[in-house]
Amino acid sequence: MTQLVDLAEQLIACPSVTPASGMVFDALEAMLAPLGFEIDRFVTGEAPDGPVENLFAIRRGPKGSRHFAFAGHLDVVPPGEGWTTAPFAPERRGDLLYGRGAVDMKGAIAAMVAAVAEVPADAGTISFVITGDEEGPAVHGTRALIDRMRERGDIPDLILVGEPTSANRLGDMVKIGRRGSVNVWLEVDGTQGHVAYPHLADNPIPKLVAMLAELDALELDDGHEWFQPSNLEITDLEVGNPATNVIPAKARARVSVRFNAHHTGEEIAARISEVALRHGGTARPVISGEAFLTPPGAFSAMISAAVEAETGIAPELSTTGGTSDARFLKDLAPVIEFGLCNATMHKRDEAVAMADLETLARIYARIAWTALNG
Amino acid sequence: MTQLVDLAEQLIACPSVTPASGMVFDALEAMLAPLGFEIDRFVTGEAPDGPVENLFAIRRGPKGSRHFAFAGHLDVVPPGEGWTTAPFAPERRGDLLYGRGAVDMKGAIAAMVAAVAEVPADAGTISFVITGDEEGPAVHGTRALIDRMRERGDIPDLILVGEPTSANRLGDMVKIGRRGSVNVWLEVDGTQGHVAYPHLADNPIPKLVAMLAELDALELDDGHEWFQPSNLEITDLEVGNPATNVIPAKARARVSVRFNAHHTGEEIAARISEVALRHGGTARPVISGEAFLTPPGAFSAMISAAVEAETGIAPELSTTGGTSDARFLKDLAPVIEFGLCNATMHKRDEAVAMADLETLARIYARIAWTALNG
Ligand SMILES: [Zn+2]
Ligand SMILES: [Zn+2]
Repeated sequence: MTQLVDLAEQLIACPSVTPASGMVFDALEAMLAPLGFEIDRFVTGEAPDGPVENLFAIRRGPKGSRHFAFAGHLDVVPPGEGWTTAPFAPERRGDLLYGRGAVDMKGAIAAMVAAVAEVPADAGTISFVITGDEEGPAVHGTRALIDRMRERGDIPDLILVGEPTSANRLGDMVKIGRRGSVNVWLEVDGTQGHVAYPHLADNPIPKLVAMLAELDALELDDGHEWFQPSNLEITDLEVGNPATNVIPAKARARVSVRFNAHHTGEEIAARISEVALRHGGTARPVISGEAFLTPPGAFSAMISAAVEAETGIAPELSTTGGTSDARFLKDLAPVIEFGLCNATMHKRDEAVAMADLETLARIYARIAWTALNG
Repeated sequence: MTQLVDLAEQLIACPSVTPASGMVFDALEAMLAPLGFEIDRFVTGEAPDGPVENLFAIRRGPKGSRHFAFAGHLDVVPPGEGWTTAPFAPERRGDLLYGRGAVDMKGAIAAMVAAVAEVPADAGTISFVITGDEEGPAVHGTRALIDRMRERGDIPDLILVGEPTSANRLGDMVKIGRRGSVNVWLEVDGTQGHVAYPHLADNPIPKLVAMLAELDALELDDGHEWFQPSNLEITDLEVGNPATNVIPAKARARVSVRFNAHHTGEEIAARISEVALRHGGTARPVISGEAFLTPPGAFSAMISAAVEAETGIAPELSTTGGTSDARFLKDLAPVIEFGLCNATMHKRDEAVAMADLETLARIYARIAWTALNG
């Protein structure tokens, strides 16, 4: 694993702000091909949600052997301002390797590559499910990869997503699920008029206010064995009326719900729509992901054991945080997420401890090995 | 009064979008000087609320005689698009005279001029209190005229404002009061964060929603002998958060209150501020006018009699509608408003019935005459 930091640097050095294609995929292909992987790259989608490049790579074990998949993304969020060094010029300073994507998640992908180099080819089938659009709309990313894998008939038995799930120390948290997410655009129409003649107008704002008060008071559930309670946040209000003496014709709001495995996105959307209609408004829901849970069992125990063997930490099994492409991959096979510390992800001066990279590669190698022999 | 329509045309032909100065005041001065008026024109204020031109004209009666004032404005609202003819090129078509300001209120000012031409100079003191900024911020308009009149020691006994108070037929409505007006800018500060981690954020929107629900439910009063109930309208909401996964740091709203003579602007502002503070927000009130009432009595009876004598209509004494400069003039003397039909005011193709102009001039002459002999 002596070249692991070099591998991470090679990936970071390819600018790949979402959606990513081309060079960064060339770099990964150049790492996987020598390890015996068959590479399937394809570009899909059109503007505005595409085009997006995706890569499926597979190294087949003996016939009938188990299939373990590493999943992740090569796109990164825009670097933003204020970096100490150039975000796409990886730099080692002290114990850290700096660069956009160091933890989310080019470092983890480099660790996956280093890990499979340690797993004998005859141990079983290993694949890489790597998208160039996880940070963007994710319409033509992992979903397209899943279609591709189904077409190919290459369905893994278990999937590990390498998102940065660790909080304070590498190994302290594994994600066995994620909440689902629905955003709902709310609108109430009224009749414009002059504030001095309110009887000739129909102010939409009080209706919207009453609707939002009811939505804010909704108790969707009081939690779930493996999840926090579902939560609704009002994220925007908009009328845009500059005239102090005018009653406006329209009022809008937006809410965002993160929901646990007690619900589906459809059900949450229907519940909000009912409230909106009852208050004279309309609702336009967009479901960005369903809740998923891989209930604790053999797979999570195996991952916890690998983490503990290398770090001495018994990881917490968690379902907190935002969404990830695990929301799609769950339809294919049991999926769990484990990766680097997320403190600097999406921030300036994103950095990974080089020692963590080495430890992560050893953990990934243990997981792959155990999964194939499981 | 044969030249009355000519006088109205001369005023309309001077473009005078608020704030007005110069030419339109020259035109009025040229009408008043020959009638024996001493003219006091002055420009006051600086950008953005000025400069504004104002005109005080006075024709003194015998020593100790009563003083009756006509008040009004020569500025007009912008013409906007879609006029059949040029808004500042007055045109007679059929029974109507078209042009911006025809009813609000150059037509009425022409009628005032024609009226005083019929009142003998020795009947008493008559003045014109004419501003170039009623339709704008009105900071340096009638308020400055009031200061000027106080400095001069020319305080009228009664004031008639010539705003277009008639609704469907000339003479159907006289305004003996106006509601006051307060606009309040409301703001709630919170802490920005990610919707997936609401415990790390503090969403200001639910506080604003609760505040607005309480404000919307406020019953300020159940009316007043001469006024509608006071009314609060929520006129704007603003957050401006484009990111569906972000809890915003700030939420804003604006309310507009039209209040009757049971209240002062201060009291309304304090009441709203108390609600805002209790919900964790702040309130910035701007009082644009206090309620005023000239209780029905000799003055209103005299105006009603003059209207009825010329039109056959017994006018309704009303306090409805928006604000006017009567809100300031009430501090100087009893003030009542009466003028043309307001159906086309502030609209395209503003027009006045030429017969109404003649009738209005006769009503104004009767009022002035009676006021001076009263
Ligand atoms: Zn990521
Ligand atoms: Zn006016």
